Amino acid sequence: MRPSPAVLLTDFGLRDPFVGIVKGVILAHAPKAPLVDLGHELAPQDLDGAALALRAAVPYFPNGSLFVVVVDPGVGSSRRILWTRSRRHQFLVPDNGVLSWLPEDEAPVVWRDARNPAWFLPPVGATFHGRDRFAPLAAALLNGVSPATLGPRVHDPVRRPWPEPRAAGGGLSGVILSFDRFGNAVTNVPSRAVPAGARLVHKGRDLGPLRSYYSEVPRGRALAVAGSSGLVELSTREGDFRARTRARPGDPVHVRRRR
Amino acid sequence: MRPSPAVLLTDFGLRDPFVGIVKGVILAHAPKAPLVDLGHELAPQDLDGAALALRAAVPYFPNGSLFVVVVDPGVGSSRRILWTRSRRHQFLVPDNGVLSWLPEDEAPVVWRDARNPAWFLPPVGATFHGRDRFAPLAAALLNGVSPATLGPRVHDPVRRPWPEPRAAGGGLSGVILSFDRFGNAVTNVPSRAVPAGARLVHKGRDLGPLRSYYSEVPRGRALAVAGSSGLVELSTREGDFRARTRARPGDPVHVRRRR
Amino acid sequence: MRPSPAVLLTDFGLRDPFVGIVKGVILAHAPKAPLVDLGHELAPQDLDGAALALRAAVPYFPNGSLFVVVVDPGVGSSRRILWTRSRRHQFLVPDNGVLSWLPEDEAPVVWRDARNPAWFLPPVGATFHGRDRFAPLAAALLNGVSPATLGPRVHDPVRRPWPEPRAAGGGLSGVILSFDRFGNAVTNVPSRAVPAGARLVHKGRDLGPLRSYYSEVPRGRALAVAGSSGLVELSTREGDFRARTRARPGDPVHVRRRR
Repeated sequence: MRPSPAVLLTDFGLRDPFVGIVKGVILAHAPKAPLVDLGHELAPQDLDGAALALRAAVPYFPNGSLFVVVVDPGVGSSRRILWTRSRRHQFLVPDNGVLSWLPEDEAPVVWRDARNPAWFLPPVGATFHGRDRFAPLAAALLNGVSPATLGPRVHDPVRRPWPEPRAAGGGLSGVILSFDRFGNAVTNVPSRAVPAGARLVHKGRDLGPLRSYYSEVPRGRALAVAGSSGLVELSTREGDFRARTRARPGDPVHVRRRR
Repeated sequence: MRPSPAVLLTDFGLRDPFVGIVKGVILAHAPKAPLVDLGHELAPQDLDGAALALRAAVPYFPNGSLFVVVVDPGVGSSRRILWTRSRRHQFLVPDNGVLSWLPEDEAPVVWRDARNPAWFLPPVGATFHGRDRFAPLAAALLNGVSPATLGPRVHDPVRRPWPEPRAAGGGLSGVILSFDRFGNAVTNVPSRAVPAGARLVHKGRDLGPLRSYYSEVPRGRALAVAGSSGLVELSTREGDFRARTRARPGDPVHVRRRR
Repeated sequence: MRPSPAVLLTDFGLRDPFVGIVKGVILAHAPKAPLVDLGHELAPQDLDGAALALRAAVPYFPNGSLFVVVVDPGVGSSRRILWTRSRRHQFLVPDNGVLSWLPEDEAPVVWRDARNPAWFLPPVGATFHGRDRFAPLAAALLNGVSPATLGPRVHDPVRRPWPEPRAAGGGLSGVILSFDRFGNAVTNVPSRAVPAGARLVHKGRDLGPLRSYYSEVPRGRALAVAGSSGLVELSTREGDFRARTRARPGDPVHVRRRR
């Protein structure tokens, strides 16, 4: 049987050898583990970006995949490393709420504080948590070690509540959370929360109804589209919405019902 | 037997989770597939860059490799997804001519319109073609599914003719197609089309005869070299030709025969 | 048994297809080789960065891993390609001293000039050494070919001495070698060379004693920390030391003993 993949999400970037070193440690201890990069070019300490990436990606990975997330403003501090699992996947994450935005059917069901130093690499200098803790813990899990040996149960993981859009004037008031490489804006408004006939408005500009396809508008035109991970996105057809509209994270986005 | 690799070429970039998600879907359906990145940092919708990358890379991959190309200005529209194969490799591509610049012995020999929705993932929002169509189609092919089940034969794939250099004044007139990371310019002039003794000229500047090695000129000197994929390249030895000469895609390049 | 991984370190960047092509050639000849990226985004010809990356990474990889390093200012010249091995790993490198900074217990113990053309790909144009030489040589080694068949023993590989800090005024005088993505400065001062109670000084600014954890100083404060690869690093807690202090490679760093 093919072992489950380890899926890596960090803010280490790809210029330095950090990601490679983490992989080296995993392979040194779990040589058959398939390694998959979910991403390493998040802006340093971009917790929103990491939480959105996991929300979009986790459901599509094979059952049993182990997500190893090292996006951690508290590196070098006493931040806990947590293990958890959902119905289909398992996770090693810093205790910073990065899993809080997972879809409901991926909700973590049990947590452990992975603090048993038996699994850590011996210290060299300042701790490089990805290398010295996350990687050997990941290898142990990939080798079938029982999560119970990692450390005790935890009942108070940090939560990072989803920024729910607010009801406003008979409609909804949301915000832009993040942008992708193409300049598309991801909002906190679930597509299914947009009533038929409602119109989307960004900074006073009416973007029309929620579309299903880019091709519903002419090239170069801005639109609101039911995005691929279930959230309303603001885009420009064959263009860069962010650059053209000078949109920014936190910009308000309104859903106006038909009168 | 080791299964054939899936080789991924997209313009998704590495900052967002898109590439990881495509890999997740492939692995969820074809867990033993080796995955190789040919590149994801093409400028969005850079079809020339994608076609040149495939021209340079395809011949070097193992027989049976499946190239999955998601560089597609028409995403979300009715653009077809085509399956094809050459003598040694197979391909899943948007119907935009991206395979037109392959070497002759990699010429596609049969095409299919991969439109059978039985292979697609169920829709969530706006279609993310890489995730919802290309990835599960790739997994099916890697699992040995017959291409005939993907959809009907196609006889009119979009072609993107190679921009042949023109005969001009007893010589040839070509153009710069693209630059690599080091600032080297790739032209549309095949090295074998340059007669012995001919000189290469860029924007009025004589770069001398076609060289075989950078070391034939002093450091910092511009030269024309028989590039590693059979095309004339313009370079600066241990320097950045693009930056030093302000060269741009489309710049004319002349081959002047000896008088 | 799982074959040993090939670990790739180049300055090819990830925008062009070069890295993918190298992988294609390796897989075409050694289809079961696991491939791991140590890094491809080094600045072109950044030999210091490559040497530091190997120093930090090599010890963490599985026994038997083959490091393939293509960071080579002399590409296209008569620069030799060398094979060597340490106690636990093996290497294919250009003859430019890139392995000189490895930790002592990874010291290369025998060298060969990998010049036997039987292992090279047939020439196409200007030689793309990564594709035409390093990759097929790597595949041969991964397939168990004896290194003796690659070429004759070499006794004069290029050395690149570690820039030792100098004794100065009862203390030590070192320099900044490089920066990582987060703006942390890596120096040439080994942490174990800093006496208890000594203070670190950068450009006249006292950064205090050598710290073990970032959390020993308040957020936004600069500090000197015993780095994760055994060298003193200069950092700003939850900030970018390079940007905040306008530090540059070559900046002097002083270790001042307590008076």
